[in-house]
Amino acid sequence: MNVMHNMTRLDFEAHQDAIVVIPVGSTEQHGPHLPLGVDSYIAQGISEILATKANVILAPTLTYGYKSKPLSGGGPLFKGTIDLNAKTLIDLVYDILCEFARDGYNKIFLNNAHFENQAYIEEAMDLATAQFPNLKVVQSNWWDVLDQKTVDEIFSDVKFPGWALEHAAITETSLMMYLKPDLVRTELIPEDVLATALPYSVYPARKEMVPECGVLASPKGSTAEKGKLIVDKAIEGFLKIFDKEFK
Amino acid sequence: MNVMHNMTRLDFEAHQDAIVVIPVGSTEQHGPHLPLGVDSYIAQGISEILATKANVILAPTLTYGYKSKPLSGGGPLFKGTIDLNAKTLIDLVYDILCEFARDGYNKIFLNNAHFENQAYIEEAMDLATAQFPNLKVVQSNWWDVLDQKTVDEIFSDVKFPGWALEHAAITETSLMMYLKPDLVRTELIPEDVLATALPYSVYPARKEMVPECGVLASPKGSTAEKGKLIVDKAIEGFLKIFDKEFK
Amino acid sequence: MNVMHNMTRLDFEAHQDAIVVIPVGSTEQHGPHLPLGVDSYIAQGISEILATKANVILAPTLTYGYKSKPLSGGGPLFKGTIDLNAKTLIDLVYDILCEFARDGYNKIFLNNAHFENQAYIEEAMDLATAQFPNLKVVQSNWWDVLDQKTVDEIFSDVKFPGWALEHAAITETSLMMYLKPDLVRTELIPEDVLATALPYSVYPARKEMVPECGVLASPKGSTAEKGKLIVDKAIEGFLKIFDKEFK
Amino acid sequence: MNVMHNMTRLDFEAHQDAIVVIPVGSTEQHGPHLPLGVDSYIAQGISEILATKANVILAPTLTYGYKSKPLSGGGPLFKGTIDLNAKTLIDLVYDILCEFARDGYNKIFLNNAHFENQAYIEEAMDLATAQFPNLKVVQSNWWDVLDQKTVDEIFSDVKFPGWALEHAAITETSLMMYLKPDLVRTELIPEDVLATALPYSVYPARKEMVPECGVLASPKGSTAEKGKLIVDKAIEGFLKIFDKEFK
Amino acid sequence: MNVMHNMTRLDFEAHQDAIVVIPVGSTEQHGPHLPLGVDSYIAQGISEILATKANVILAPTLTYGYKSKPLSGGGPLFKGTIDLNAKTLIDLVYDILCEFARDGYNKIFLNNAHFENQAYIEEAMDLATAQFPNLKVVQSNWWDVLDQKTVDEIFSDVKFPGWALEHAAITETSLMMYLKPDLVRTELIPEDVLATALPYSVYPARKEMVPECGVLASPKGSTAEKGKLIVDKAIEGFLKIFDKEFK
Amino acid sequence: MNVMHNMTRLDFEAHQDAIVVIPVGSTEQHGPHLPLGVDSYIAQGISEILATKANVILAPTLTYGYKSKPLSGGGPLFKGTIDLNAKTLIDLVYDILCEFARDGYNKIFLNNAHFENQAYIEEAMDLATAQFPNLKVVQSNWWDVLDQKTVDEIFSDVKFPGWALEHAAITETSLMMYLKPDLVRTELIPEDVLATALPYSVYPARKEMVPECGVLASPKGSTAEKGKLIVDKAIEGFLKIFDKEFK
Repeated sequence: MNVMHNMTRLDFEAHQDAIVVIPVGSTEQHGPHLPLGVDSYIAQGISEILATKANVILAPTLTYGYKSKPLSGGGPLFKGTIDLNAKTLIDLVYDILCEFARDGYNKIFLNNAHFENQAYIEEAMDLATAQFPNLKVVQSNWWDVLDQKTVDEIFSDVKFPGWALEHAAITETSLMMYLKPDLVRTELIPEDVLATALPYSVYPARKEMVPECGVLASPKGSTAEKGKLIVDKAIEGFLKIFDKEFK
Repeated sequence: MNVMHNMTRLDFEAHQDAIVVIPVGSTEQHGPHLPLGVDSYIAQGISEILATKANVILAPTLTYGYKSKPLSGGGPLFKGTIDLNAKTLIDLVYDILCEFARDGYNKIFLNNAHFENQAYIEEAMDLATAQFPNLKVVQSNWWDVLDQKTVDEIFSDVKFPGWALEHAAITETSLMMYLKPDLVRTELIPEDVLATALPYSVYPARKEMVPECGVLASPKGSTAEKGKLIVDKAIEGFLKIFDKEFK
Repeated sequence: MNVMHNMTRLDFEAHQDAIVVIPVGSTEQHGPHLPLGVDSYIAQGISEILATKANVILAPTLTYGYKSKPLSGGGPLFKGTIDLNAKTLIDLVYDILCEFARDGYNKIFLNNAHFENQAYIEEAMDLATAQFPNLKVVQSNWWDVLDQKTVDEIFSDVKFPGWALEHAAITETSLMMYLKPDLVRTELIPEDVLATALPYSVYPARKEMVPECGVLASPKGSTAEKGKLIVDKAIEGFLKIFDKEFK
Repeated sequence: MNVMHNMTRLDFEAHQDAIVVIPVGSTEQHGPHLPLGVDSYIAQGISEILATKANVILAPTLTYGYKSKPLSGGGPLFKGTIDLNAKTLIDLVYDILCEFARDGYNKIFLNNAHFENQAYIEEAMDLATAQFPNLKVVQSNWWDVLDQKTVDEIFSDVKFPGWALEHAAITETSLMMYLKPDLVRTELIPEDVLATALPYSVYPARKEMVPECGVLASPKGSTAEKGKLIVDKAIEGFLKIFDKEFK
Repeated sequence: MNVMHNMTRLDFEAHQDAIVVIPVGSTEQHGPHLPLGVDSYIAQGISEILATKANVILAPTLTYGYKSKPLSGGGPLFKGTIDLNAKTLIDLVYDILCEFARDGYNKIFLNNAHFENQAYIEEAMDLATAQFPNLKVVQSNWWDVLDQKTVDEIFSDVKFPGWALEHAAITETSLMMYLKPDLVRTELIPEDVLATALPYSVYPARKEMVPECGVLASPKGSTAEKGKLIVDKAIEGFLKIFDKEFK
Repeated sequence: MNVMHNMTRLDFEAHQDAIVVIPVGSTEQHGPHLPLGVDSYIAQGISEILATKANVILAPTLTYGYKSKPLSGGGPLFKGTIDLNAKTLIDLVYDILCEFARDGYNKIFLNNAHFENQAYIEEAMDLATAQFPNLKVVQSNWWDVLDQKTVDEIFSDVKFPGWALEHAAITETSLMMYLKPDLVRTELIPEDVLATALPYSVYPARKEMVPECGVLASPKGSTAEKGKLIVDKAIEGFLKIFDKEFK
């Protein structure tokens, strides 16, 4: 596995044709049972496996992301959520993409595990590819590549609350049980919790919009097996994208 | 109806307790049969009706929006799509929100009809409310407030392609048939067209990602009645939000 | 008349050689007798007529402009004036100019009706044309193209107070009487008002710098005929500019 | 005279109640007979005299200004014109104003001698005074404070071409003859030159818009006496402003 | 050890009085024998040990830093160096500092291991503490806290080339031998290399300014013992700073 | 000597092959005995002499610089220090460099006399040379070009406190005694003062970090002869750089 920070310059130069994979996470509260690094660990963990299956250079993970929103992450009212402003995230991703392009690495995959990052990442992708015509950048995430059958399987015993509410819930908890089991406090998994998805956003955020525990839907029923299933299917999906876009 | 640009300063001052509604649209290609102003006309048209049902000041429509994306708007490769950069849109909405707050208008509703705007509007909302503690800003759109029953009714005769592909398709065409019938070229409505939703984004955009006609799903089956149904339900949804957030 | 928002993409593509006219207005108090949209209505109204006389595509009006100043607009202390910061306006105009240039529309006319916009519009013009060498952008306004004879005719019965003080005064009131008569509250036209033009600017603005009514010179003597005269002469002037710069 | 750069910190602290005068100039071509520093020399020269007549601290001159325009300065096509972008000038003036305010110096006078600077200076003034409520900033220039009688006197023997064309012409040449006679090449003063003021601006600039010599109206008839008259009247005007705004 | 990304929100809230340590590194070429992650590994490695000796929360490492310079890092002409622009780094650090302050964590230590970061980090510190009066931020690095005796001991057998040239040389190689021995390719350590420190900087960078191997001074003589000595002394120095600034 | 502000455009055009020297200073407290303009006077004074020894155009001095730091300049807590934000300084230098490059002047030397400016100047140099491939920019200062022998000679009678603490101390006082003797208040030179250099930076600044007099090391022993020695050696060093980089 080509972990960029473990490679010397000469190792790096020897992989000019590789796909650069940049995991993008966050530092965000994930309820009482999951650590603040969930999104970063998932982005990086899946990327590491991906790096064993394709000609990949694994770049350092972006561990600070865009602002957590009440109804997809609990929002700014919980401590431990350290967020970037939109312009900062755009510039950060833009600078990194341009630098790889300047070095001649023109196939970049942004593996995002924090939903709120997406629009700002895409602005950076647009601006960087406008600057470097040979550069091609793809952005995806583990949830968008899951097929309906997989989703059904994961939610065979509980109701799927919708992706927005899957924050610190079954999918993320299962992923952590599989990728970082030591960091899951199974004894603290909250039960019978369900936020209500609103058809609007409102600022400033209010405490009562989010369950007190910071989890938006019950993680009960999470298992390492479900985590493995998601990872396998995400890898499968990402490899298909590589085939289509980077061959 | 209190159209802000038709009000004198004294009229405006007399409505200090009103909800300021700002329609947010775009200038974007919408296939061969719909005009470039679709998103702006829909945002403004629904807002005008809304303004007859509540204590509203109708602010001028934002007629330029964030970049059209291939799989939710056709993207930058079609002419007639005039887009703003993310930072520009953030600043534009931020400045306007702050100005209303400085004048003491603290209830603002952003009625967005161009999906791609949302994340950047929300950054502006976050920054402005951080600056003005008394300010409350709500953002919504006509599709998120529709209930499942309404969606089923609209798509009783054709398959729902998902919201991302509902660009220049049944819902927008029906809305224009109801709100601006003269601007719909029914004879040019494309048939048998369906883009494939991809579980990823890729930059730069490529022509072949989008059907040549610029429509992402067939608008066949659009009717003014469906348009009216959507408008009625959207108004209903928005009024509920007003009740909950602005009373 | 080619109103861009009413044109389909195909209509738009069929006018590749047209002059794109972008009206630039504001949202600004204009005394007790004129609505907040005066500058936008005038910019748009004159542009609409212009669009019937030349090969023009009429782009959507910019309805929010630069900060109103005490001695050319009444300033920020009146409610209903919703202003943009300088950098926001520069970016907004810059993005729009670049987008038209990217689509191959290289003849753009900015028809500005809010004096305070000019310097910032010009910065955007400079930056955009530096980026797109084929792009040519012209900026003008209805007052700079009037010849002395016309000014004398308009002010045959009252003294010309200078353009800076012509805010919500005879010229703007007359223009609105001609272009949007329903929006003029003739019964509220203030009399005997005259601000003093200062040979300096001072910040922060102070209430006492501007007459309480928000009008800087008396609009008494305004007529629709004077409005028509201004419009006719402005159109004549703009067409001469088109001839010289865009043929 | 309290020249800030000659004062120690203790001298500076001893003048907490002084008016801080910041001369604002440019680096801009001024024809064959005047040096590139004309605007800076005039702004500074008048400020130095002003500093002998009032309780003033004379801050360092801003010697780089906003972009020269073809019809008020000759524009970017002449070498030796070193211009700042609008945002840079706004930030530069903003930072300086805020720093004086942080030190408790709340009376600031910007003595501008480069017309094109004004709008950007004013944006900085607006932003800085919004940040520091006790701060008061005034901006003026030598031409706006001249009364009609003085203008008539200066142009008793030649026709006044309008202020826009008074670039490197009689007023600036006369001012330099009085303030910096050694820097005027009288033998190179061009004759019979007159640019045509256009009622619009166009970008990019074109060579033929400006007389080849870079002067917009003939400086013939310039004298040190006229220069002294302008300076005396400007000082008089500025002192009146000080009386009104800073007592 | 309190690794922030391993802590739940509740763990984090239980350490409100801790010092937040943010390691700041880079992604930068470090010669043929050291990996691209050297600065990040050193910043993080020392911080981890520090976190076992004081009441510390270890925040995620910043793994992308400011531009590598020819004479302190080899510069942009070597591949594998992925740099941020100054404004991006300022914003990134600013946002993170503000977010911790918003959560009430007011003691922050930035442990920087990439020399070029320092000035930009300090700008962020200045801006963030101006915004949050209770916030205190300290910045240091392992080389500035070493006393002369330690430096002498490390360079007892070779001449000290000065800190600027200690890039991928004895100190960094020794540190990696101690902290990440598996990542050091001892067999590739270049000998007899020495760049010349210049008393100036010049842009653009030129290949010949830097030894072809990308190392600025010979790493010969590096040992894990020297690495341990540096780490021990750095920890000692940092703890003294904590005592003085954060008790 | 070619002082740019004294040159006409034609003079300027006649020196297309000259090295443009831009002195960069500050407005910063320098203790009780030196004026606020020390850094600007030194940068400009040395540059003027340099301009008599080489083919130089002397551009206007930048008289406002980056923020004074407690341990290299006394910091923001002393009045009379008027600082720019990092981004402003970067933009200011960037714009100026680009403008000279646009005019075809591709050899630029930034003679900096305020230590804190350096990193931001270098960012501007990097960005400008990326934009203009023919442009070459060198940055240096009087202290980095001094050889050890000269430093020893200056500090033959007192201990060298390190460059960081040489603020308003022997070197700067001696330089002013040589370059601007009238501005030195020898009777106010503080004795027996010595700040302690800290191996870290901390924000916000605290009064007690800096000696009350604002001087970081005793200027006792300053002489005009030492000032002349520094100037002579700096000129010698700069000319060597010109020879190497600009021939």
